Amino acid sequence: MSDTVLKPGATIGILGGGQLGRMLAVAAAELGFRCHIYSPEGESPAFDVAAARTVSSYENESALAAFAGSVDVVTYEFENVPAATAKFLAEQIDVLPSPRALAISQDRLSEKELMQSLGIGVAPFARVDGVADLEAALDRLGRPAILKTRRLGYDGKGQVAIREGDDPAHAWDAVGHKPSVLEGFVSFAREVSALVVRGRSGETAVYDITENVHRNHILATSTVPAAIAPATADAARAIAIRVADALDYVGLLAVEMFVVETGGGETLLVNEIAPRVHNSGHWTQDGCLVSQFENHIRAVAGWPLGATERHSNAVMTNLVGAEADDWHRLAAEGGARLHLYGKSETRLGRKMGHVNRIAPKR
Amino acid sequence: MSDTVLKPGATIGILGGGQLGRMLAVAAAELGFRCHIYSPEGESPAFDVAAARTVSSYENESALAAFAGSVDVVTYEFENVPAATAKFLAEQIDVLPSPRALAISQDRLSEKELMQSLGIGVAPFARVDGVADLEAALDRLGRPAILKTRRLGYDGKGQVAIREGDDPAHAWDAVGHKPSVLEGFVSFAREVSALVVRGRSGETAVYDITENVHRNHILATSTVPAAIAPATADAARAIAIRVADALDYVGLLAVEMFVVETGGGETLLVNEIAPRVHNSGHWTQDGCLVSQFENHIRAVAGWPLGATERHSNAVMTNLVGAEADDWHRLAAEGGARLHLYGKSETRLGRKMGHVNRIAPKR
Repeated sequence: MSDTVLKPGATIGILGGGQLGRMLAVAAAELGFRCHIYSPEGESPAFDVAAARTVSSYENESALAAFAGSVDVVTYEFENVPAATAKFLAEQIDVLPSPRALAISQDRLSEKELMQSLGIGVAPFARVDGVADLEAALDRLGRPAILKTRRLGYDGKGQVAIREGDDPAHAWDAVGHKPSVLEGFVSFAREVSALVVRGRSGETAVYDITENVHRNHILATSTVPAAIAPATADAARAIAIRVADALDYVGLLAVEMFVVETGGGETLLVNEIAPRVHNSGHWTQDGCLVSQFENHIRAVAGWPLGATERHSNAVMTNLVGAEADDWHRLAAEGGARLHLYGKSETRLGRKMGHVNRIAPKR
Repeated sequence: MSDTVLKPGATIGILGGGQLGRMLAVAAAELGFRCHIYSPEGESPAFDVAAARTVSSYENESALAAFAGSVDVVTYEFENVPAATAKFLAEQIDVLPSPRALAISQDRLSEKELMQSLGIGVAPFARVDGVADLEAALDRLGRPAILKTRRLGYDGKGQVAIREGDDPAHAWDAVGHKPSVLEGFVSFAREVSALVVRGRSGETAVYDITENVHRNHILATSTVPAAIAPATADAARAIAIRVADALDYVGLLAVEMFVVETGGGETLLVNEIAPRVHNSGHWTQDGCLVSQFENHIRAVAGWPLGATERHSNAVMTNLVGAEADDWHRLAAEGGARLHLYGKSETRLGRKMGHVNRIAPKR
């Protein structure tokens, strides 16, 4: 990796204009950087806090070339940037995290294979390219099990549970006959995530392990500290660093894990990784001096990483759909900090904002 | 005052595009607002984080009218907005803090007269409209004394000290023969400021009193907690609230005070007030859950005020001129958060950024 260090005043290019891009742009501005947001959507929340904007598709090579020419580094706010887009840009300018890290984390199968190769536990899984594969996998992994497309899944999209009596062919239809992975059922005690940031020289820092609760496949709350044993937290940090190192990763990486209780102890299984700032790290905005957003920007800019220590305990609660209509009451709540994303249209299941509630660290 | 409550997505107009406007715009964005910055300077730091920008003079009525028509409320980042500009805008749209509060705090004499009328201590002072006034004032107040223009002074500009042997006529020349105030010398133990936010319905909240150290007339550091007696801190808070109430103020008001040691006790004298977010409140970004910037936006938007409690002790250090060139070392310092303003040109005496160093609250 190049040892470039961007100076204040440099321009950071961000692919994607949603709330993560918005919060990255704010963090970048606080360090004196300018941001140029590239998004196919004309109404992108990140545009409102960026010095420059491009509205174009990820396939428009002339727009991409102009974008690359106007910035000092490119990063992205979500993992579904087409691999070809990242590769095309990388011929002109540093793209961080690397297109390779992006490609691996875009594909559930290569993600799981990477974990296996690193000796990191994952739920039992099988590759599924058709109904015959699926039937064989169900015989091996048992039911219930979850069929997930290898690509483009998020917030529960692109996945279907298969229970006793369900017809595998229906499940295969439900995922649109797309290359998939069947995951065996894991009876986990809790879900946690490790947020690791890795710099251009390979240095790493990990935030305190976060405990996550999902509702309707969407993250509902993230809590620090997590109710896990100190040794489990240490193991979770070590896993995150191992994955980041293996990917020669630069930036903020989120590693979601299941905590399984086994004979009095706790075992970790990696569920999935996200090569970007992550919803389960939003608490760092108000629980730490340096947020995940700032640390991502520091890493891609070649800056020293910021400290990941917490000054407070924190609970992050997402505001999904109409929950954000309650903004006035939330704004009046002591010990709570409200974050809204400036989205003009409230839609069912759409993340509109979040609240961080903090309390003294005991 | 109107009881308007702006909804998320509304647009906040900010007069002035410097670092205070920039930090206000970021705070507004975090609550889901859009910002429109109006500045006469083509290269304004706040432009990089705003949804809309106008570059025009404060005298251009058609540009001002278009600006007023595009926003839901107008506020400002500095007190030297021409009173006529504020008045012109106020005929079309809410301008907060009010043009009256702005007018009073633009004039050192009316500011001091207000304090007197409220029974709040100030340094001995005299109105000076010519050399004869000045000589009479020097006879009364003694030397050393400081001659300050009534208007447009900041960071030590527009003021001159008069010591034994100095010629009053020279001092009068030095302030450009502008209407001025002579202030008697105050032997103070320390300087503090109270940051009070007052909402549209008159509710107030005050941050912990900040202790300030100036160097070359420019703020160097702000520290919380201040090394003052609890009763003095309470008195400082009460003064700030009294001033804000008297001005029917809406937004963040900074009240700078001298702490004078008198017979084992501490007496407060108000030095000056600033009708805006203030450099001595920058520590609130990292020492509190809700910063002065967010609380100013909440107030002008008609929102509930945010809590002003500290979660940490804090020391803010300004980066003036070339001090900001040290950004790489500062970025690597643990317990420190670096803020840079994105100014392209470093100039002597120019505020380029600041650092907040936090520590656990004991």
